[in-house]
Amino acid sequence: MSSEQTESPYQRRRSSRRDADVADLVGRAREGQARAVARLISLVEDASPKLREVSAALVRHVGHAQIIGLTGSPGVGKSTTTAALVTAFRAAGKRVGVLAVDPSSPFSGGALLGDRVRMQEHALDPDVFIRSMASRGHLGGLAWATPQALRVLDAAGCDVVLIETVGVGQAEVEIAQLADTTMVLLAPGMGDGIQAAKAGILEVADLYVVNKADRDGATQTVRDLRYMLSLGGRHSVAGAWRPPIVATVASRGEGIEEVVAALDKHRRWLDDSGERARRQQERAAAEIEAIAVAALRERMGDVHGLAALGTLAARVVHGEIDPYAAADGLIEQL
Amino acid sequence: MSSEQTESPYQRRRSSRRDADVADLVGRAREGQARAVARLISLVEDASPKLREVSAALVRHVGHAQIIGLTGSPGVGKSTTTAALVTAFRAAGKRVGVLAVDPSSPFSGGALLGDRVRMQEHALDPDVFIRSMASRGHLGGLAWATPQALRVLDAAGCDVVLIETVGVGQAEVEIAQLADTTMVLLAPGMGDGIQAAKAGILEVADLYVVNKADRDGATQTVRDLRYMLSLGGRHSVAGAWRPPIVATVASRGEGIEEVVAALDKHRRWLDDSGERARRQQERAAAEIEAIAVAALRERMGDVHGLAALGTLAARVVHGEIDPYAAADGLIEQL
Repeated sequence: MSSEQTESPYQRRRSSRRDADVADLVGRAREGQARAVARLISLVEDASPKLREVSAALVRHVGHAQIIGLTGSPGVGKSTTTAALVTAFRAAGKRVGVLAVDPSSPFSGGALLGDRVRMQEHALDPDVFIRSMASRGHLGGLAWATPQALRVLDAAGCDVVLIETVGVGQAEVEIAQLADTTMVLLAPGMGDGIQAAKAGILEVADLYVVNKADRDGATQTVRDLRYMLSLGGRHSVAGAWRPPIVATVASRGEGIEEVVAALDKHRRWLDDSGERARRQQERAAAEIEAIAVAALRERMGDVHGLAALGTLAARVVHGEIDPYAAADGLIEQL
Repeated sequence: MSSEQTESPYQRRRSSRRDADVADLVGRAREGQARAVARLISLVEDASPKLREVSAALVRHVGHAQIIGLTGSPGVGKSTTTAALVTAFRAAGKRVGVLAVDPSSPFSGGALLGDRVRMQEHALDPDVFIRSMASRGHLGGLAWATPQALRVLDAAGCDVVLIETVGVGQAEVEIAQLADTTMVLLAPGMGDGIQAAKAGILEVADLYVVNKADRDGATQTVRDLRYMLSLGGRHSVAGAWRPPIVATVASRGEGIEEVVAALDKHRRWLDDSGERARRQQERAAAEIEAIAVAALRERMGDVHGLAALGTLAARVVHGEIDPYAAADGLIEQL
C-alpha cells in the first residue's frame, strides 16, 4: 500500500477499516444483505478510492442478471410500470434490483427528483434492492457509475435489474448500451413521445409499452408506432428481433403479464441468437473506454494539467492560437 | 503536404481544391457571403480534414458576437421566440446568426427535427445566417462541432448568435457553457418545465422567458419561478446578476422588446463585471479539453486500439479482469 505512506495516521486508520470492508461487503452482498449492497453502490457512485477494489472483487460474480432498461418521456408512467414489474417478478420468485437514474444538476451534484418514494411498497422486501442514482454531468453520466452499480446488483444475485431513466435525446441510447433489453414507454396524447421516438427510440427499443391505454388516443398511439416500425430499419433483417408493442394500464396492473412474457421471450432470443454475448462484449468495450476517457480527463484536470489548460485557454481567447493547436499542446503535457 | 503522398491523384486534386478554398472561404465569410459561411460550417460539422485549418484561419476574427443560448422543453415556443428575436435584432440593424441544435439519432447521424422551416421568413435576408445542426452522440454532441460553428458565425461578423436547443437534463448546462447569455423558456401548464427547472435550469439561466403568457396559468408559472429564484443560490451574492423574468407571447411579438432590453442589459453587466472575460476563458478551456478528449478517443478507436479494446472487453466478459484494469491496459497502449 505504498500510496498510503503519505496519508496521516487518521487517514490510514480509515483506509484500513475500508480495506477490511470490501471483501467482507462483497461476501455479504452475495448473500443478499441489503446494507452491504447499498454500501457497495455508494462506494461506486462516490468514485471512492475503493472503486477499483470493488470492481475487481465483483468480476467473478457477474453475468447472471437480465438488465432491463426502461425509458420514456416524463409523465408516461415509468415509476408505476417499474413498481408493477417488480411485483410481477417477485410473484415469480425472482430477486430484483432497481436503479432509478435521475436527471440532476451537475452543479449541485444532487438528485432532486427521487423516485424512491413511489417504490415504498417494495421497500421492506429483502429480495428487492432499490437505488436512486444521480447522473453526474455530461461526460460520464450513465457511462460512469451505472455499469458498476449494475455489477453490484448482478453480483448480489439479482435475476433481473431494472434501470429506469427519463428518456429524452441521448438517454435511450445510453440505456440501450447498458441493458440486455430496452423497453420504451409511451402514453397516448403526448406528441413528445412520438417526437422522441423519431429521434432515437426506433433504433434502440426491444419492446414498446403504450401505458395509460385506457385513455383517449391509445389506439392511435399504437397505430402510429406500428406505422413507424413498418418503415423498417434494422428490424426488417431476417432473424432480427421484431419489437412487440404492449398496451398497459400499469396503475391497475393491466398488461403487465404480457410485458413480462415479452421480456422473457426477448431474453430467450438474446441467448439463442448470440446477441446477448455480442451485447455483453460491446458493453464491456464501452465501459472500458469510458473509464479510460475519465482517467485521461482526470489527468487533464490535475494541478499540473489545470495550469497548462488555463494558459492555453488564455492564448485562445487572445487569438494567439486556435483550440486544436491548444489541444495538441494539452495532450503533449499529459 | 506529406500526409497526401499516399493519396490517389484524384484525392490530391480534391485536396488542392479544398486547400485553395479555406483561406478564400474565410475571406468571403468575413464579407458576409452566406454560401461561404455555410460551407465553413459544413467543414466543421463533418469533422473534415480541413477542420484544423478552418479553426486556425478563424482565430484572429472572433470575439465580437454576443452568443445567446435559448433552451426549454419541447413545446414552449423556442423556434417562434427565436424568429421573433431575429426580427427584433434585424430591426436594430444587427447581423444575426442562428444555430438550431437538434436532437438526433447517433445511429443515423441525421437531424430529423429540423427547425429550418419555421425560420423561412428570414431565409432570404442576407444578414441572417441560419443553420440547423445535428448533435452527434453523447460524447462530443454540443461539445464538438457547435463551438467551431459559433466561431464561423462570429468571424462572419454576426453581432448576435442565437443557439437554440431542446433543453432537458444536461442540454441547458452545455448551452450555458457555450453562451454569453442563457435564456430559459417556460410555458404555463407544463409541469415538465418546472421539473426541469428544479434539476438544472436554476443554476444556468441568465434570463427567464415565460412564453404563451396569454394562456391560463401564466401568472402561476411566473410566481412559481420567482419563488424558486428567491430560494437563492449564486444569485444572492452581492453584485451577482439577478436573472429577470419576462412574460411573452412570441407568436404575436409581445414582450420581445423587453427580452431584447434584458439581453442588452446582461451584455453590459457581462462587460462591466468582468464576467464576460471569465466566461470566455472558461469556454476556451472546455473547448480545448473536449478536443483533446475527442483526439484521445480517436486514438482508442483506431485500428490498433480497436483490436486491443476487443481483447480487453472479452477478458472482462469472461471475468478474467475488471474494467478498471482493462482501462489501464488500454491507456498503456495509446
